[in-house]
Amino acid sequence: MTATLVLLRHGESEWNALNLFTGWVDVPLSEKGRTEAARGGELLVEAGVLPDVVHTSLLRRAITTAHLALDAADRHWIDVRRSWRLNERHYGALQGKDKKQTLAEFGEEQFMLWRRSYDTPPPEIEQGAEFSQDGDPRYAALGGDMPRTECLKDVVARMLPYWEEAVVPDLRAGKVVLLAAHGNSLRALVKHLDGISDEAIAGLNIPTGIPLLYRLDDELRPVQPGGEYLDPQAAAAAAAAVANQGR
Amino acid sequence: MTATLVLLRHGESEWNALNLFTGWVDVPLSEKGRTEAARGGELLVEAGVLPDVVHTSLLRRAITTAHLALDAADRHWIDVRRSWRLNERHYGALQGKDKKQTLAEFGEEQFMLWRRSYDTPPPEIEQGAEFSQDGDPRYAALGGDMPRTECLKDVVARMLPYWEEAVVPDLRAGKVVLLAAHGNSLRALVKHLDGISDEAIAGLNIPTGIPLLYRLDDELRPVQPGGEYLDPQAAAAAAAAVANQGR
Repeated sequence: MTATLVLLRHGESEWNALNLFTGWVDVPLSEKGRTEAARGGELLVEAGVLPDVVHTSLLRRAITTAHLALDAADRHWIDVRRSWRLNERHYGALQGKDKKQTLAEFGEEQFMLWRRSYDTPPPEIEQGAEFSQDGDPRYAALGGDMPRTECLKDVVARMLPYWEEAVVPDLRAGKVVLLAAHGNSLRALVKHLDGISDEAIAGLNIPTGIPLLYRLDDELRPVQPGGEYLDPQAAAAAAAAVANQGR
Repeated sequence: MTATLVLLRHGESEWNALNLFTGWVDVPLSEKGRTEAARGGELLVEAGVLPDVVHTSLLRRAITTAHLALDAADRHWIDVRRSWRLNERHYGALQGKDKKQTLAEFGEEQFMLWRRSYDTPPPEIEQGAEFSQDGDPRYAALGGDMPRTECLKDVVARMLPYWEEAVVPDLRAGKVVLLAAHGNSLRALVKHLDGISDEAIAGLNIPTGIPLLYRLDDELRPVQPGGEYLDPQAAAAAAAAVANQGR
């Protein structure tokens, strides 16, 4: 029996549109992002892939994407689970900064190291800084364990326990699972699912709003490596655009 | 220790606006309803009542209301639970019918009996009828137990087990609970909470989009009978308008 998993990166946010580093800052979808989310739901219907349960991060761009996509797919009524472990990578002191300015200020090498190296996080965000999440009640239970910056390796480490403890049981129960999350939390999961190396993951981008379908075998390995985008042409075009951000 | 419960009837739906009996037909909010929902969230913030968990029906007008209200209150990230037991009363063969036409066709007495009597349901909806929920996957687990019509007494009977098994434990755990539901499922709960008689409940209307706050004592009895609307003036005006529907 194969399990069915659908990954959905949130639609464009207001800060995607402004080309700012977002991370854990809780910005809303742009109008374009809302349209993308609904289109994602239509793609689910066209493919006949109807989620039984949705898992989201604690950030509104993923939560609203899930809401709009599921509403468009007439699956708004399914069970919902949320976790900070599906959040975007914490971008540390870069949160709120302009990507182009950051590139100009720190140079191509440092910029790409922060954006794409597997294990080099940006500098930590200061306590109480404007774009920190200090005092945010949704993270209160984390206490001093709340990240102050993350590299992708950190995201893998905090995402996988949720995958194992919350998502895998749903898949084992035969549920079609929708995971509505972020560029880097989804890259972390794809790295795990497809066994991508620490180096090769740097070249993998996941476009916004296009459901990525995985059929998984009994060992939860992808039947088709890399899965299948439900709109492959749009996915190819979008992935190329993401790779050029900040240029 | 008092428990905090907030009841929120969904904002105006497209069929409220058209004056049709809706019941379990899954119509979306109108634009006015979306505005009402967001305003409901602002009222929560103004009152300092911040939900920790939301319970909704399986109908999109309640689900979207919860989403918009919680987003406006910056509580979009809280836990979500859903149940058909919070659905609107099933309106049987009246679903999809015009309220004014129904009043003209059946007369004031029969009309008010169906709308407001405690224990007289409308005729059952036929198998496979246009506005039946036959074949709807969200009710598949109910099988032959899916209602084909309901009076308020029936709603009380199917709502209370969910109250006891799912909502009360959250209240006992000290969580602020938001219950986003419908005119009649909320009337059923208010009847229970306030100990309203089968006769007197006929005169109670709950307006759309205005949070109704209950502080409950250790026996889960309202500290203040009838609770407190977070916008009492709007609530009084709206309740009067609801009572005149179909006139």
